[in-house]
Amino acid sequence: MPLTFAPPPKDKVELETGSAFTPRFDEKGLVTAVVTDALDGVLLMVAHMNAEALALTIDTGVAHYYSRSRNRLWKKGESSGNLQTVKEIRTDCDQDAVWLKVTVAGHDATCHTGRRSCFYRTVGVEEGKATASIDDDHRHFDPADIYGQR
Amino acid sequence: MPLTFAPPPKDKVELETGSAFTPRFDEKGLVTAVVTDALDGVLLMVAHMNAEALALTIDTGVAHYYSRSRNRLWKKGESSGNLQTVKEIRTDCDQDAVWLKVTVAGHDATCHTGRRSCFYRTVGVEEGKATASIDDDHRHFDPADIYGQR
Repeated sequence: MPLTFAPPPKDKVELETGSAFTPRFDEKGLVTAVVTDALDGVLLMVAHMNAEALALTIDTGVAHYYSRSRNRLWKKGESSGNLQTVKEIRTDCDQDAVWLKVTVAGHDATCHTGRRSCFYRTVGVEEGKATASIDDDHRHFDPADIYGQR
Repeated sequence: MPLTFAPPPKDKVELETGSAFTPRFDEKGLVTAVVTDALDGVLLMVAHMNAEALALTIDTGVAHYYSRSRNRLWKKGESSGNLQTVKEIRTDCDQDAVWLKVTVAGHDATCHTGRRSCFYRTVGVEEGKATASIDDDHRHFDPADIYGQR
C-alpha cells in the first residue's frame, strides 16, 4: 500500500515541531521540491510534487514529480535516463516545501537542455534592463537525441 | 525608477537561451525563490517573490519577498535584523524560479523559529507513517524576544 499523509495539524507549534510529516499541499495539491546534488550541494532544479509523487519518491527512493505542463506524474529521467536517487529528504518549518538531496544517473544532467543544472544563468542589470547570462553552456547530452526534435 | 520586467517570450528557445530576464510569474504574480547561504551552500529557505519584491531585491541587493500569509511585501529580517545580502541571483530554464545566494546578518538565522535554516527536519518512515525528525535544534535567537508571544 502506498504511503499516505495525514492532514496538517491546525496548531502551528505542532506543524513546526511535531514528529509527523504532514505536507501542506497547496490548492492544486502540490508542494515545492528543491533538488540539490548530494555530492556538492549544487541546486539542480525546482519542481513540484503531489501526494502520489511524494509517496512514490519516499517509497522507491527515486525522485518522482508532478509535471504542471503535462499534468501528469513524472518519473524524472524516464526519457533521458538521468534518474535521481534520493539520499535525503528534508522539510521546512511550515511543511509546504521539501528538499531532496540526490545523485543523478545517466549523463549527470538534470536540465532538459542537457545542462547539469536548470540554473545555468545569472541575473543582472544592463542599461536599466534585467538580463540573464548563460555561464554554464556545457551540454551533457543533446536534447534532440533524447527527446527528438520538438 | 524601479526595475520592470518584460513579458516572457512565447518562443521556448528564446525563453531558455535569450539574454533577457523575463520572469514567468504565476497566476498569483509570483515566482519561487530558493535561498542558499553564499558561504557554504546550505538551503536556508524557500519563498515567493512578486515583481515588486524581485525588482527591490535586484535594485537594493537586499532580499525582499512577498509574504503569502500576510499578503504583503516582506523585507526579510525587518523584525529580526537577519537581513539577507544578495551575492548572486540565478534563474532556471523556464524562468519561473530564482536562486538567491545570500549572506545573513544579525543572528545568522533565517527561520522564524530561530534556527539557521527552515529545513531543520529530515523526512522518514516509521511503522508505515511519514515522520519528520528535528536534527537541528540550535536556536540562534528566541522567537519570543523578537516577535513577541504569538
